[in-house]
Amino acid sequence: MEKIEHIGIAVNDLEAANERFGKLLGQDHYKVEEVPSEGVRTSFFKTGDSKIELLEATDPEGPIARFLSRKGEGVHHIAFAVDDIEKEMERLRGEGFVLINEKPKKGADNKLVAFLHPKSSNGVLIELCQEIRK
Amino acid sequence: MEKIEHIGIAVNDLEAANERFGKLLGQDHYKVEEVPSEGVRTSFFKTGDSKIELLEATDPEGPIARFLSRKGEGVHHIAFAVDDIEKEMERLRGEGFVLINEKPKKGADNKLVAFLHPKSSNGVLIELCQEIRK
Repeated sequence: MEKIEHIGIAVNDLEAANERFGKLLGQDHYKVEEVPSEGVRTSFFKTGDSKIELLEATDPEGPIARFLSRKGEGVHHIAFAVDDIEKEMERLRGEGFVLINEKPKKGADNKLVAFLHPKSSNGVLIELCQEIRK
Repeated sequence: MEKIEHIGIAVNDLEAANERFGKLLGQDHYKVEEVPSEGVRTSFFKTGDSKIELLEATDPEGPIARFLSRKGEGVHHIAFAVDDIEKEMERLRGEGFVLINEKPKKGADNKLVAFLHPKSSNGVLIELCQEIRK
């Protein structure tokens, strides 16, 4: 685990939340990206050497729509940057963490990602993400 | 807002959570600090240029005990480092954010802190923190 890559925050309305977080952070978001496989539209802000990722549901059956209807807006996950995601998944499995994904998958922002189930990390949904090397 | 200073995570049992997050992050916590005024015992881990703060309730009527009984374990707040907390509070008040504290107060880890109400920041409890200058 190298650093906090980003914090993912589920929001009802991406445009309104972009404006709000723009005021909070004193800067605009630098990109919007849709990830159809996850049923989300995302936007990103830089803060220090980490990012804030806002997540709006585009699929009413997707994970963000379900989270919003169950819990409302708020922090959805914490993502940590890793150098070698397969190796880190193996290490964490050995330490007793419950992995949601058996294999890394393609996420937003040119990343390979995998999630740890909140039940093995004190209620926190953890994402591992590794930059996809060209 | 300079960077994510830390992410605060509410936990039921600080010793067990220290062990779990030690495995997650591949390193031990570097300190434990009690903040009697907030009814919490905290521990800290470094990750990149940010920290993870675990929060265990010591006062059954305090904010962490109430959070845990209402929502269970999970992310409690996101803290951003600021250079001048009074100035930043004034700026955010002007932008329509709802401040929980009228004045900065002494927090853990040698910081002056103030909180923004989650209702004006998409369900996220935001902490501002400024290092106390000697």
